[in-house]
Amino acid sequence: MRRLSALALMLALPALRAEEGMWTFDNLPLKQLKQKYAFEPSKDWIDHVRLSTLTLGGCTGSFVSGDGLVLTNHHCTRGSIQRLSTKERDLVKNGFVAMTRDQELKIPGLTYRTLMAMENVTERVAKAVPAGLSEKQAAEARAKELDAIKAELEKAGGLTYDAVNLYQGGETWMYGFKVFKDVRLVAAPEIAVAAFGGDYDNFTYPRHDLDFSLVRVYENDKPYNPPHHLTWSTEGLKTGDLTFVVGHPGRTSRLQTFAQMKYDRDLGIPAYLKNADRTRGILEEYGKRSPEHARQVQTLILGVNNGAKANEGSLAGLKDPEAMKRIEADEKALKAAVAKNPKLAATTGQSWAKIEQALKTQAGLIKETQYVGSARSTTLGQALALVRLAEQLALPVEKRLTEYRSESGLKTLKTRLAGPAMGMMGQAPNPEQEVLLFTRGLEDAAKELGSKHSFVVTILGSRKPAEVAKALVEGTKLGDPAVRKALVEGGAKAVAESTDPMVQLARKLEPTLLALRKKQDGVKAILDEHGARIAKARFAVYGKTLPPDATGSLRITYGAVATYPANGTLQQPFTTYLGLYDRHLGWGGNAAKDHTDWNLPQRWLDRMGQLDLKTPLNFSHAVDTTGGNSGSPVVNRKGELVGLLFDGNIEGNAGRYFYDEKVNRSVSVDARAILEALAKVYDAPHLVAELTAK
Amino acid sequence: MRRLSALALMLALPALRAEEGMWTFDNLPLKQLKQKYAFEPSKDWIDHVRLSTLTLGGCTGSFVSGDGLVLTNHHCTRGSIQRLSTKERDLVKNGFVAMTRDQELKIPGLTYRTLMAMENVTERVAKAVPAGLSEKQAAEARAKELDAIKAELEKAGGLTYDAVNLYQGGETWMYGFKVFKDVRLVAAPEIAVAAFGGDYDNFTYPRHDLDFSLVRVYENDKPYNPPHHLTWSTEGLKTGDLTFVVGHPGRTSRLQTFAQMKYDRDLGIPAYLKNADRTRGILEEYGKRSPEHARQVQTLILGVNNGAKANEGSLAGLKDPEAMKRIEADEKALKAAVAKNPKLAATTGQSWAKIEQALKTQAGLIKETQYVGSARSTTLGQALALVRLAEQLALPVEKRLTEYRSESGLKTLKTRLAGPAMGMMGQAPNPEQEVLLFTRGLEDAAKELGSKHSFVVTILGSRKPAEVAKALVEGTKLGDPAVRKALVEGGAKAVAESTDPMVQLARKLEPTLLALRKKQDGVKAILDEHGARIAKARFAVYGKTLPPDATGSLRITYGAVATYPANGTLQQPFTTYLGLYDRHLGWGGNAAKDHTDWNLPQRWLDRMGQLDLKTPLNFSHAVDTTGGNSGSPVVNRKGELVGLLFDGNIEGNAGRYFYDEKVNRSVSVDARAILEALAKVYDAPHLVAELTAK
Repeated sequence: MRRLSALALMLALPALRAEEGMWTFDNLPLKQLKQKYAFEPSKDWIDHVRLSTLTLGGCTGSFVSGDGLVLTNHHCTRGSIQRLSTKERDLVKNGFVAMTRDQELKIPGLTYRTLMAMENVTERVAKAVPAGLSEKQAAEARAKELDAIKAELEKAGGLTYDAVNLYQGGETWMYGFKVFKDVRLVAAPEIAVAAFGGDYDNFTYPRHDLDFSLVRVYENDKPYNPPHHLTWSTEGLKTGDLTFVVGHPGRTSRLQTFAQMKYDRDLGIPAYLKNADRTRGILEEYGKRSPEHARQVQTLILGVNNGAKANEGSLAGLKDPEAMKRIEADEKALKAAVAKNPKLAATTGQSWAKIEQALKTQAGLIKETQYVGSARSTTLGQALALVRLAEQLALPVEKRLTEYRSESGLKTLKTRLAGPAMGMMGQAPNPEQEVLLFTRGLEDAAKELGSKHSFVVTILGSRKPAEVAKALVEGTKLGDPAVRKALVEGGAKAVAESTDPMVQLARKLEPTLLALRKKQDGVKAILDEHGARIAKARFAVYGKTLPPDATGSLRITYGAVATYPANGTLQQPFTTYLGLYDRHLGWGGNAAKDHTDWNLPQRWLDRMGQLDLKTPLNFSHAVDTTGGNSGSPVVNRKGELVGLLFDGNIEGNAGRYFYDEKVNRSVSVDARAILEALAKVYDAPHLVAELTAK
Repeated sequence: MRRLSALALMLALPALRAEEGMWTFDNLPLKQLKQKYAFEPSKDWIDHVRLSTLTLGGCTGSFVSGDGLVLTNHHCTRGSIQRLSTKERDLVKNGFVAMTRDQELKIPGLTYRTLMAMENVTERVAKAVPAGLSEKQAAEARAKELDAIKAELEKAGGLTYDAVNLYQGGETWMYGFKVFKDVRLVAAPEIAVAAFGGDYDNFTYPRHDLDFSLVRVYENDKPYNPPHHLTWSTEGLKTGDLTFVVGHPGRTSRLQTFAQMKYDRDLGIPAYLKNADRTRGILEEYGKRSPEHARQVQTLILGVNNGAKANEGSLAGLKDPEAMKRIEADEKALKAAVAKNPKLAATTGQSWAKIEQALKTQAGLIKETQYVGSARSTTLGQALALVRLAEQLALPVEKRLTEYRSESGLKTLKTRLAGPAMGMMGQAPNPEQEVLLFTRGLEDAAKELGSKHSFVVTILGSRKPAEVAKALVEGTKLGDPAVRKALVEGGAKAVAESTDPMVQLARKLEPTLLALRKKQDGVKAILDEHGARIAKARFAVYGKTLPPDATGSLRITYGAVATYPANGTLQQPFTTYLGLYDRHLGWGGNAAKDHTDWNLPQRWLDRMGQLDLKTPLNFSHAVDTTGGNSGSPVVNRKGELVGLLFDGNIEGNAGRYFYDEKVNRSVSVDARAILEALAKVYDAPHLVAELTAK
């Protein structure tokens, strides 16, 4: 292997794309911003956008008025809006606008937080862990020190502190948050406009969603006056304009090895998609039985399609030869750096090979992983869970599978098992559907595993899948939650004595399933251990020149409003209200019987003539975001609000593995569309005035 | 092999999709129409739509007024509009509307024809060919009889007759046409609206093109009064409505064997796409040298992308497992039917195996086919053509390659070789571009063929590609048409004595190229011969229950206005003028500097407020069409005009192989959009009145 000099190593730095990276606020890519965009943010600019941003738990929001108005997505507050609705007053369907502050609706149980302080405690924590401790002792010492720091910091100020691990443990920070517990709903559009196009248009661009809501933060029953809030841009965006997104991206897996990505590309995702195809096929088969059958499976099929869409996006990315070449080259450079550092070579030199070996084992298990299980039967799935729960609880804690160790985990599991039956996507299963899914599931298992596999032998013997499925579904009583509750509470004895045919079958199957699970756990342990070693080596070699993987902590990313190639053409950077009405009318408007996802509320039809239809509605920009960025403010060079992030394009799903500036785009609501709707559709000039006050 | 009873054979009829088929007018799918759409066209209905349709040579048109107005696509008359333009008066750019009949512009050299009579002459021709004739004698007897029939028929009436072969010779017809030679331009929109979105949006749906033009047919200097013309629907279309398309589809290859389709899927199209990727890459590399370089290659890259897009559409179709299963099953059924018929078994029983064998040979030649040639050099291509012309002319006619046999073919070839230099897509090559393309072409040849291949050895020896390319391009004089003309006229002697380095190289390469060509011809002969045998067997087995392959003759096809899945969602069946302006403004409107394909003429910006923006503009429908259907009228159950076909979707490119009703869609201009534009943008109420007169 070629030895790299320090200079060569610098040149061989992973080829970070211009717009790649979800950066922490202590480590902004100032050089790249200056080089590519001639932009040099001041410390005030940086503090201002950070302090204007809130974390909503899984989503992001931003202060947009001096009186504590917070802007976020409709899909981030939808649960709250649902809870505030009554039978008589469906705020999800009809939308809501408070015409006075008195009308603002308090949302129970909601907590918003804003990041006020960041303290790097890496060294202090390191000092608290003397050399020579066992791994367990070290972890305890670290935790103790972090608790002590947290207590000190919280005593000093009015903030709540959380430890934040970055770079897979390379750095530890304490982030201090101001916490708000009184949050009130101010405005939300109808869901038909907020999520126009429904699941069909999810991830699809051009997009036409007014996915926003406004809430207000109160303190002591008075609107909170935040020290920082984003002002609304009066200029608006143009194609090519630089944008910044501040938010809380949840999780990326960009440190996976090249071999892992190839595994997902060649085996993992294709297996997922094959299964999704099959599921869709079975549901469609069921739907052909009558219009009522079709109605029953409609949302199930949409769900399957949405999952498939996301995975197809990831797969398309992994199939991009340029991107894969880049990843391979990056890995090669890191391997070289590890090889020439004796300490790293000792810990991590073999890690790539170990992972490859584990993936081979995983590949050998892929068919069993897919076909040894519930065979698409909800009830068999429940029976298997009941049997395993009973058997695991009979073991000492340290010998159990991970998820049977903590009390809280066990409690959740028991509650779920004793609750209402949950089939695909939480729909209650019905016997006819169950028989068909189970039959096809058994047919597939027999076909894919072979008639001699112990799973197939145990479940089918010489009988036909349809016959077995029908007899079991008709014979079981597990559809009744009370029966399952009795089995959960009765424990090992009750399960062992049960004469329910599904439970009897599950008892026979459990040894096969458990043996498979242990093999899978063996693979996972290797992937986790050596993945962590590689991540640590990466930080040791490159330090903070690369951004850390997303972890849900506050980040900033940047990039221009931009087109990208898709559907055989180039996608337009902006959509407008013209496009919203075009996509509505393209199906026949509200007269469309079969495609109601593109219906519009009557208010929107009535106000079409008042709206300036040329107003930009959504835009696509080359920023590096992921789940958790929903509701993030989009700001311009001046730090003004220009948009509200709510989605990514299909291709952006490959962002899980890497960022590709050619096609990975985030999709945001244009700030101008929000003002136009508040003024012309929702008759809310008071909100427009508050949002645009200087 | 399982023997099929007659009944089983009927059941095993190729699973014709509901909307599959470009049907001849003597053999409409009346049963399918009745079953699926409860539609029974009368003889009058059928005659009316047929007699209202015209063939424009490569395009279709229809009479749409009692005074001989003909509606067709803008892209069908674009060449004529170009010829009618002057430097001062650019009708392509600015559009044209005749405000009075005096202003209508006569188009020189144009011939329109309408099919008035159809005569099945299969039996008469068969009788004229006695058994026992050699193949050549039989062909002569057939041709003689057809000439005689043509003369008889033309003498009897005022029509011009053409022989039409259907079902690969299974039927022969005489089609009688009324011919029009005085055709005048009446109205045409600006190209920016007719071809809105340019090459980018070609094949892409949703689409927003007003791709129409109006011409008028004159007879004796008076508007012609056709006995039939289509009246304009006052109802308009809705999603799900049944439509018919009458037109002249050019060519399909649906009788290819399953093995041929797999070859195209696995080798042929991937090789095409690989080459297109490479071409694009080289052009982009060139374009990076300066903005001027980028400008030079912009349309070349678009052309490459368009070809790639069409082939990607075909490939996606061939990768559809359901469609391929259907084709395989159809072929199996035909093979079975052939096997049980001794006469067919004797002629055709081995044909599938022969084709498979030939495809194996073809696969073995694929790299040489791609890399042994001009190596992307326009000038080397010319030199090779000059050398081959000289060598072929030195042979007796019957020993020459096919294209060097007919006098007319040779004349065209010579004219082209002595004409202005034509590089990619007819652009004049420039030396800098030529050197880069040639260099990369040589690098690829060396890489793909290996350094020991005689082509590579001859051209490179031990020298570097860049060096060889530069020396040859700088040394050759073939850029000068006069030099090439002298070589064409000087014949074998001049070519043999030429000291031009490109010609010298071409002389050395010709033996390698000719040897390859002979192998390719061997493959083609087998594919042609056995393809024809299979087609004849197919007609013998199924007769006219299946429609014939497209041949440019008049056909009718039917299907509903329908959505289809693409870009991760469902495509809307209609677009509207709202969508046109949305796609315009989505780039920043006419302010967009880099994306001018979506600019709109000033008149369209000025009139936006007058237009009813909700008017449907384009729609997608599940009809089976292909090139040659451009300009076809779309009619409803009443035989009224509802649209004007102008394109297919990307997925529709698989229609070359098979029709897939799930995704194959044609795209048409909604008739309502044409009236709205004539009234509100072009101030032409006189045309609206003529088109809507009852």
